[in-house]
Formats: sequence, structure tokens, C-alpha cells
Amino acid sequence: MEDYGRFLALLVSALLVGFVSVIFSLVWVFHYREGLSWDGSTREFNWHPVLIITGFVFIQGIAIIVYRLPWTWKCSKVLMKFIHAGLNTIAMILAIVSMVAVFEYHNAGNIPNMYSLHSWIGLAAVIFYSLQLFLGFAVFLLPFAPVSLRTAVMPIHVYSGLTIFATVIATALMGITEKLIFSLRSNPAYSESPPEATLVNCLGVLLVIFGIFILWMASRPYWKRPPEENAKALLTTGGTPEGTEAESTMTDGGNADESDLRSNSEAARKQNLKLDEAGQRSTM
Amino acid sequence: MEDYGRFLALLVSALLVGFVSVIFSLVWVFHYREGLSWDGSTREFNWHPVLIITGFVFIQGIAIIVYRLPWTWKCSKVLMKFIHAGLNTIAMILAIVSMVAVFEYHNAGNIPNMYSLHSWIGLAAVIFYSLQLFLGFAVFLLPFAPVSLRTAVMPIHVYSGLTIFATVIATALMGITEKLIFSLRSNPAYSESPPEATLVNCLGVLLVIFGIFILWMASRPYWKRPPEENAKALLTTGGTPEGTEAESTMTDGGNADESDLRSNSEAARKQNLKLDEAGQRSTM
Repeated sequence: MEDYGRFLALLVSALLVGFVSVIFSLVWVFHYREGLSWDGSTREFNWHPVLIITGFVFIQGIAIIVYRLPWTWKCSKVLMKFIHAGLNTIAMILAIVSMVAVFEYHNAGNIPNMYSLHSWIGLAAVIFYSLQLFLGFAVFLLPFAPVSLRTAVMPIHVYSGLTIFATVIATALMGITEKLIFSLRSNPAYSESPPEATLVNCLGVLLVIFGIFILWMASRPYWKRPPEENAKALLTTGGTPEGTEAESTMTDGGNADESDLRSNSEAARKQNLKLDEAGQRSTM
Repeated sequence: MEDYGRFLALLVSALLVGFVSVIFSLVWVFHYREGLSWDGSTREFNWHPVLIITGFVFIQGIAIIVYRLPWTWKCSKVLMKFIHAGLNTIAMILAIVSMVAVFEYHNAGNIPNMYSLHSWIGLAAVIFYSLQLFLGFAVFLLPFAPVSLRTAVMPIHVYSGLTIFATVIATALMGITEKLIFSLRSNPAYSESPPEATLVNCLGVLLVIFGIFILWMASRPYWKRPPEENAKALLTTGGTPEGTEAESTMTDGGNADESDLRSNSEAARKQNLKLDEAGQRSTM
């Protein structure tokens, strides 16, 4: 892998920022708010930021870059697809539970649902995320879709995935803004910058930084998982991935199943280069 | 150009969505709020959403995709760089004026500055945008930077540009959320979904759609401006850009100045393919 050290530094930074974000959300609800429970009170609402940041931001972020972890390249592509789909499923379940918490809290307190821009875009994000998961499962995980369909759908799958992830972070920022204005009305007000406001503003900044790290790692073509045969060859010979960069630009997400069947011959190498030109379309 | 019709449809859709967003911001401030003036009142504040949506979202969006308009490929690269830099400069000036409007409004009404997450991330976006413009000018427009430096900086320039653009939209969504909560406190409240709330929520949704269109157009490698020589050949022969796709993946933004010097010979074509492998790093 090219620039392994830089990838590792970025990965550790992203995981750290994501982890600190989850901690900040817990400090917010336990230290400054009333903690967590499931009783229709604000304690039930508090599950919303915690589960969104843990699941819909942190776990989704890891699901996006899971193919790029070089130590997974020895694992089969289908196993990695299951891990990618599994992490996204966990993120989706946590997002749905976190939405149920808000609806129940609203209904218990006679607060209208779905009136804010945050709720509109948030619900759209959950719907598109579920659709993305369902279509990804049908096209890339089930063995029925032809390679031509997979190749055609992959650029859309990759772009939708990254766009939904960015939209989720934007929605979280709106949610933070709403919650701070509603819960810090006076003594102290949000505009007086009490410690809670500073902590949660910092949480928002961390979410943006997390998104920037994940999207950078996910969009570098030279950090893509190489085609199956090359990965095996690298692992058995202990060689560097010289010459595989062009091929590796093709294997974004879970496509390039055809590459699994390729041999490492010179003819196949040329074919790889050709396919690569098409594969660049899936390069986000 | 591959898929010219689809590019054109997307472009028209993006321009329409961007234009309607600007109209919506004007309807918001003129029909539902007090209009525009420069006197420290809320009418001065109202310049903030209008200028941000016009300049920092709409004009910045056009600046991002200006290299991709096929009818500009007959123009010289340096002219297109000036247009790209010029549009971004206009966007920056409008963003700064819109910030001054908010600071003056806050100061006139003794409202604290810089306490909200919106203000933190918004100010960071303006600072990074200005830095991006300055560095872009120094590295890509002035003739002093060596090609190696340009090649190294280009992927960062492209990624920063797209990330700042997405962050600006996220910040606008936070600003919309803040403003609707503050100005629709009661009779009617935001939670009662009066027409103003619906209009401005729709404005937020339009901004997200505009961002999705622009980022899709900006990240498709096959819609990149081809290297200078190929563009000229295409224009003089009226041919289709067959075989230029690989080369075109290199010319994102304003790099690949070396490609301007290339001949269209077979040797150069092979060299293009090699360079292209490296150039993919600039593919966002």
C-alpha cells in the first residue's frame, strides 16, 4: 500500500475524533442533561444524539472505509461485503431507534413532529440510507445481478453513500443547534456561552473533522483495496503493491467482482488497465 | 464529451435549483421579514441569508464546475483559471459583506457575537475559503510554482474546495434553523408550521439538492476538461472525444499544465496514460 504510514495516521486520527465525539455526547446528556431512560421524558429524547453520533456518524464512517483497511485485504471480498453491510445495518437500526425516541418524546409532551428542517432532512437521510442498504444488498451481495449492472450501479452507490454520510453530519449540526437553543433559553442562555454550549459546539466541530477525515480516506484512489489476485500475490510474496495502483482504482466499495476472476498475467494486466479507465467512473 | 445530454440536463437542473434558492431567500426577507437596508436593524441582518445563498452557495457552485462546461474547452486554460478565481473572489466578497451585516446587527442590538456552532463553523469556512483562494492564486495562477508542486497540491486543492462548499451548505442549514427558531417564537411558532417555515424549510432542501448536483458534476472523471491539445483537435475535426477519457481524468481544476504542452502523438498518448495513473490522485 502506498503511503501506509499516512493512511494509518489518518485512520487513528479519525477513530480518535469519532470516539471523542461519542464521549462528548455522553458527557452532554449525563453531566449537563438528565441522563438516559425510556419513559417519554427528555431522558428518552437524550438517546437521540447519543445513538445518532454513535451509530449514524461513527459506525457509518467506519463502514465506509472498511474496504480500505490494508490488513483486511487478505480476507475474501464477500466477507468484507458482509462486514460493510453489517456495520451499515447496525447504523441504520440505531438511527431508527434514535428517531423513535424523539417521536415518543414529542408525543408524550404534545410537541408537533416533523416541522423543522432538521426533521425533514434527517428523515430523508434515513429513508435514502435504508434504500441504499436494500439496493446494495440486492445488487452487490446477492449473487443474481450481472457484472454489467454492478458496474453501472457502483458509481451511484459510492456517491450516494458519501453524500448521505455528509448529509447526516449536516443534519446532526442542525440538531445540535436546535437542542442548544431550546434547552439553553435563559440562566444561562446559549448566547452567554455557558460550558455546556462550548462543549456541544466543540462536539459539532469534531463531527465535521471526522467527516473530512473519512471522506478523504474514502476518496483517495491509491488507497483502494486491490483486486483479489493482486492482494493474494502481495501477501504471499511480501512484495510492495507496485503496479497495482491502476487496478486498485477500480475496486471501490464492493464492485469489480470481475477482477476476482482475473489472473495476474500480462494480458490480464493490460485488461486491468482498460477496465480501470471505466472503473475511474466509480472514483468519487 | 461523453453523455453530453446528461451533463446538460444536470447543469440546467442545478442552475434552476440554485436560481430558485436565491428567489426563495428574497421572498423570505421581502414577503415574510422586513426587507433589506443597511441601518443596523433586522433589515441589515437580512442581507446575510441573501448574500450567503447568492454568493457563497450559488456563485461558488458555478465556480466549482466552470472547467467542466464543454463550450469553454476552446478557451485557453489560463482564461478559465481567471474565471474560476474571479467567481470565487466574488463569492468571498459577498460572504464577507454578509458577515459584516450580522456583526453590525448584533452590535447594534447588543447581541453577543460568535457564540453559536453556526458562527464557529461559518467563520472557519470563510477563513479556509480565503486561504484556499490565496493558495490557489499563488500556486496555479501565478507562473512561479513548478509543475511538481502543482501536481502535489492539486488533490488537496480539489478536496478542500469541495469540502468547503459542502460545509458552507451545512452552515446555511444551521443558519436557517437558528433564524426560524428565533423569528418564529409564537403566533405563529416554528412548530406550528406557518407558510414562512414551510418556504424556508424548502429553501434548505433546495440547497442540499443544489450541493448534490454540483458535487456529482464535479466528481465525474469523464466530464473533466480534456488536455489542451485534445480539446483543440476535437474542435477542429468536430470529432467525438473517443480515447481522451483517460487523459481527461487528469485535468481536474486547474492542474495538468504539463498536458498543455503535450503533442497528440502515439508516444504522448502512452505518456498520457502513465500520467493519468498519477493524475487519478486528483480525482475527487
